[in-house]
Amino acid sequence: MSTAERLVESTRDLLWERGYIGTSPKAIQQRAGVGQGSMYHHFAGKPDLALAAINRTAQEMRAKAEEQFSASGDATERITAYLRREREVLKGCPIGRLTQDPDVMADPMLRAPVEETLAWLRDRLAEILAEGRERGELDAALDPQATAATVVAVLQGGYVLARAADSPAPFDQAITGVLGLLAAHTSTAPK
Amino acid sequence: MSTAERLVESTRDLLWERGYIGTSPKAIQQRAGVGQGSMYHHFAGKPDLALAAINRTAQEMRAKAEEQFSASGDATERITAYLRREREVLKGCPIGRLTQDPDVMADPMLRAPVEETLAWLRDRLAEILAEGRERGELDAALDPQATAATVVAVLQGGYVLARAADSPAPFDQAITGVLGLLAAHTSTAPK
Repeated sequence: MSTAERLVESTRDLLWERGYIGTSPKAIQQRAGVGQGSMYHHFAGKPDLALAAINRTAQEMRAKAEEQFSASGDATERITAYLRREREVLKGCPIGRLTQDPDVMADPMLRAPVEETLAWLRDRLAEILAEGRERGELDAALDPQATAATVVAVLQGGYVLARAADSPAPFDQAITGVLGLLAAHTSTAPK
Repeated sequence: MSTAERLVESTRDLLWERGYIGTSPKAIQQRAGVGQGSMYHHFAGKPDLALAAINRTAQEMRAKAEEQFSASGDATERITAYLRREREVLKGCPIGRLTQDPDVMADPMLRAPVEETLAWLRDRLAEILAEGRERGELDAALDPQATAATVVAVLQGGYVLARAADSPAPFDQAITGVLGLLAAHTSTAPK
């Protein structure tokens, strides 16, 4: 791995574990095994490095979600696959957690990828739900945009509950609950 | 307000705004207008002060929720009133946000009130949902425990989405979505 690469990867790890406010340039250098001069040769400073780290994490998150979103299956199957995918539940969401970082939220450059990623997730889920409704897989009363926001919120909030309980159980329960609620909107008519 | 009181209130504000990792003893003293010696006269240190602050916030959160939980109305009405209550959405949840603070999660004393408050919320909502099911307000297929976890997760995740978007709109959408899903489980039989 190149020096720049090691710095970005170390920043990603530290942002996930300790957040932006809790990550010092010194901690990044130590984890990457890179000196201060070398770090400032590659990056203008902590915000610059954090932006590269957040952009990469956001990109990965989209690519992983798209695997389930564009798979075969009806709307409910694809959403179930997305929600039930294996996750490091106790670590929480590396993008969602940044919303609790006042310095990230106060910086439009750093906030942009956080905002865009969560908006993209909602939009993609809304598309899938709208598609399912058109195909008659979901009943007409279902509001795709609102339901999509609910699904993303359940995931983000599920992480909060799991971290509070130091157990993935409440995360799994929250997913079971929303899928149960969604099931009542699944059309019983033959496809 | 007494000195101890001012210190606790300042700590509550700072924990909400900047989290535990982002709150220094010095910042607490400055906001409270209290000297270092006076702070250490009243509290052993930052963890001790944070515990008092978190306990008070947790107590207030329960009392506010209980206002809607124990109001009159059927299960759906009380849950709707709870979810639609006026909130400082963009500030997020002062308890939920602490789950992103590695130093709070690593300290069993500080984590306890966070865990207990979110567990209590889930249990109370599960009771209300179970009651609604017994009374025939909600259909028998509804899983009270899982649905309660979903409702708490939607709130916590709704805050994340609102902060990311710098707008309460996605929070409101997530609430609309879960209430829409819940409506499909509302018994259509005459009460």
